[in-house]
Amino acid sequence: MLELRLVQGSLLKKVLDAIKELVKDANFDCSTTGFSLQAMDSSHVALVSLLLRAEGFEHYRCDRNLSMGMNLDNMAKMLKCSGNDDIITIKADDGSDSVTFMFESPTQDKISDFEMKLMDIDSEHLGIPEAEYHAIIRMPSAEFAKICRDLASIGDTVVISVSKEGVKFSTRGDIGAANVVLRQNTTVDKPEEATIIEMNEPVSLTFALRYMNSFTKATPLSNIVTISLSSELPVVVEYKIAEMGYIRFYLAPKIEEDEDETKPEV
Amino acid sequence: MLELRLVQGSLLKKVLDAIKELVKDANFDCSTTGFSLQAMDSSHVALVSLLLRAEGFEHYRCDRNLSMGMNLDNMAKMLKCSGNDDIITIKADDGSDSVTFMFESPTQDKISDFEMKLMDIDSEHLGIPEAEYHAIIRMPSAEFAKICRDLASIGDTVVISVSKEGVKFSTRGDIGAANVVLRQNTTVDKPEEATIIEMNEPVSLTFALRYMNSFTKATPLSNIVTISLSSELPVVVEYKIAEMGYIRFYLAPKIEEDEDETKPEV
Amino acid sequence: MLELRLVQGSLLKKVLDAIKELVKDANFDCSTTGFSLQAMDSSHVALVSLLLRAEGFEHYRCDRNLSMGMNLDNMAKMLKCSGNDDIITIKADDGSDSVTFMFESPTQDKISDFEMKLMDIDSEHLGIPEAEYHAIIRMPSAEFAKICRDLASIGDTVVISVSKEGVKFSTRGDIGAANVVLRQNTTVDKPEEATIIEMNEPVSLTFALRYMNSFTKATPLSNIVTISLSSELPVVVEYKIAEMGYIRFYLAPKIEEDEDETKPEV
Repeated sequence: MLELRLVQGSLLKKVLDAIKELVKDANFDCSTTGFSLQAMDSSHVALVSLLLRAEGFEHYRCDRNLSMGMNLDNMAKMLKCSGNDDIITIKADDGSDSVTFMFESPTQDKISDFEMKLMDIDSEHLGIPEAEYHAIIRMPSAEFAKICRDLASIGDTVVISVSKEGVKFSTRGDIGAANVVLRQNTTVDKPEEATIIEMNEPVSLTFALRYMNSFTKATPLSNIVTISLSSELPVVVEYKIAEMGYIRFYLAPKIEEDEDETKPEV
Repeated sequence: MLELRLVQGSLLKKVLDAIKELVKDANFDCSTTGFSLQAMDSSHVALVSLLLRAEGFEHYRCDRNLSMGMNLDNMAKMLKCSGNDDIITIKADDGSDSVTFMFESPTQDKISDFEMKLMDIDSEHLGIPEAEYHAIIRMPSAEFAKICRDLASIGDTVVISVSKEGVKFSTRGDIGAANVVLRQNTTVDKPEEATIIEMNEPVSLTFALRYMNSFTKATPLSNIVTISLSSELPVVVEYKIAEMGYIRFYLAPKIEEDEDETKPEV
Repeated sequence: MLELRLVQGSLLKKVLDAIKELVKDANFDCSTTGFSLQAMDSSHVALVSLLLRAEGFEHYRCDRNLSMGMNLDNMAKMLKCSGNDDIITIKADDGSDSVTFMFESPTQDKISDFEMKLMDIDSEHLGIPEAEYHAIIRMPSAEFAKICRDLASIGDTVVISVSKEGVKFSTRGDIGAANVVLRQNTTVDKPEEATIIEMNEPVSLTFALRYMNSFTKATPLSNIVTISLSSELPVVVEYKIAEMGYIRFYLAPKIEEDEDETKPEV
C-alpha cells in the first residue's frame, strides 16, 4: 500500500507543469527513500530526473517498491483541480491499476478524490554517475528563463561560454545575432539574486534553445538554477525543490559542423 | 414611453455576460413591477429567468407593458462600451423599433448613447409554479463554479448527491473518476462563505456539465448560489442580484440508462 | 559613427509598439539634431512622424547624417529582450550594413548586444507645413483609445464633430448607432485628465476607425493626446514624448458620398 501526504500540495502541481511539456508518459517510482521519476523526452534527446525525498512528506508510507505509469497531461489535469492551499495525498493499493489523488482544503470542508488509471510503460533506468564539471553557474532562475526566451526570438541554438569574467549566452538567426553577458556578482542584497561562477577551465558549448526553454518551465519551483557544464558531458540544469529534492534536466551539446559560420565568437 | 435609470450600471453588463452564452435572442419584458426576461437556450434544454424589480432602479417609468426583442450579443457589445462606474439608462419610445442605452460618467463629462434595433421574437411565457424541493444547497458561488469547471475536465455529466453529511459532486470520464465532497459548514467568519444544506430527503441527480458551466457565468453577480434539487423537477440554480431581483437557471436531470456503468456510487 | 545612449530605454520599446502595426519597414534618420522617422503605412493612407531630439539622450554622437532602413517587427523583437529599467544604446559604424542595440541592466551585471542587418528602403521625405486648424482637442489619451475601441465594435468610421459644447464621436453600423459626447472640462484635479477644446470654427469630419485604433497604440507614451482638425487637412493625432519629442499620425478625412445615409447628425 502507498500513501504519501504532502502538505504543500501546490508543489506537486508545479512539478507536473515543469515536466509535462517534455515528457508525455512516465513511470513514477516509489520506494522507502522517496518518490522519483526518470524519463527521456519523446524525441530521446533530453532526460528529466525528479526526486521528492520521503522526509519531505508529512506522512510517507510505501510498503514495497512500486512503479506507476502515468500520462502526465492527465495527471496535470487532475492536480489542477486542487486548491492552491490544499493538502494532496497520493494513494494506491498494492496491485491496483489505478492511483488516487486526494485533495483536502485547509479547513477540511472540501475533500476531493480523483482516481486515474495507470499505464504500462517500458522504461530503463539510466545510472547517472557523479561527475566533475568544467564550470558551474548558479544564477537567478527567472533571469535564465528570460535569456532563453529572448534568444529563442532570434535563433534556434544558444552557445553558453564561461570565462573568468562571466558567462555569455549567444545566438544567431535570420534577423541578426545576440550576445548576453552576465558578470559574476556575489554582492547582492538577497542571496537568490547572486550570479556565482565556479570555473575549473573555460568551456563553450552549443545547445538547442527549444529544450532549454522547456527546462525553464521549472522556474516556479526555485529562485535559483544551477547549470553544470563540461565538454564531454550533457549539461545539467538543476532546480532544487526546498526541503524535498530536485528536478534535473540533462541535454547533450550540439556538435557544430561549421563553427565559423554558426558559432558566435567567445 | 420607457425610461429605466440604473445607477450601478455595471450590474447590467454582468447580467448580459451571465446569459448571453446560453441565449442568443430574447424578449425583455417591461411592466410596472420590473424588467424581466424568460428564455430557453437555443437547444431548448435549459431555461433562464431574470428579474430586476422596479424598486431597484433610481428612476423607473414604464407607461405600458412592453416586450423588446434583442440580440444579446449585440446588446452585450454596446453595454461593454459603458464605463464601470457609469449610470445606464434604458430608453424606448412607444411603438419604436429601437432601444437606446445611455451611459453617463460619474462626473457627467462624458455622455454616450447607443441605439440598437429591436427584433420580433416569438416566445411563450412559461408559468413556473412554486415547488417543494428535496434538498436546497446554499454555497459560495465561486466554489460551485470551480467544481463545475474542474469536473468538466474529467467528464461530461455531474451527479449531485445530497445526504445528511454534505453534498457530493461526481463525474467519470475516459481518464478516470472524480468526487468532490462539501460538508455543511455554517461556522465561518463571513456568512457568504457558508455551505448550508437543507434536506428533506436524500437526492441524487445527474446533469450535463456543459449547462452547469454556462450557469456559472453569473458568478460575478453574487457571492452565493442556491441549488434546489428534487427528483421530479428541474434543478434551479439561483443567483440573487442585490436589492434588485435574481437570475435563475432551470435544467432537467438526465435519466441514466445504465446506472451501474456511468453513475458513480453515492 | 553613431552612438545614442538612452537612459529610459523602455521608451524606445513603447515607440516601436506604437508604430509597428502601421509600418513594416522604415528608415530611421539620424542627424545632429535628433533621431527621427517619417513613413507612410503600407496602404499609403496614413503617415507617421517620429522625433526624438538629441538633447533627450544621455549621450548623442552622430558624426554624419545617416539613414538606417529597419524592419520594425524585427527591431521590436530585439527591443523586447531589454529589461524595463535597462539603458539602451544604439550603435552603428559608418558604412556598416548593421545596427547594434546594447542593453545595460541598472546594476551593470548584465550586458546584451543585439545586432540587426539594415535594409535598403526607398522613401521620400514629405515636407509637412505648419498649418492653422479649425479645432484642436486635447484630451486624456486613454479616453480617446477607449472611444475608438468602443466605436469600432459598432461601425467602421467615426465622425468627429466639434462645437462650442464639446466634441462628439459618432458611428453607425449594422447593429445600430452610437454617439459619445465629451464636454470641455478644465476643472479637474489632475491636468492630464482635462478635456480642452480650442475652436475657431465648428468642424465635422469622418475617419476610418481602423487607422484611429492603430494610432492609439501610442497611448503608453503619453497621458495626453492632441487631435488637430481642419476641413482641408489631414487630422493630426499627436502624442508628446516627455522631454524628447513626439509621435504624430496624419490621416486624411473620408469624403462621404451620401451624407444623409451614413453620417450621424451633428
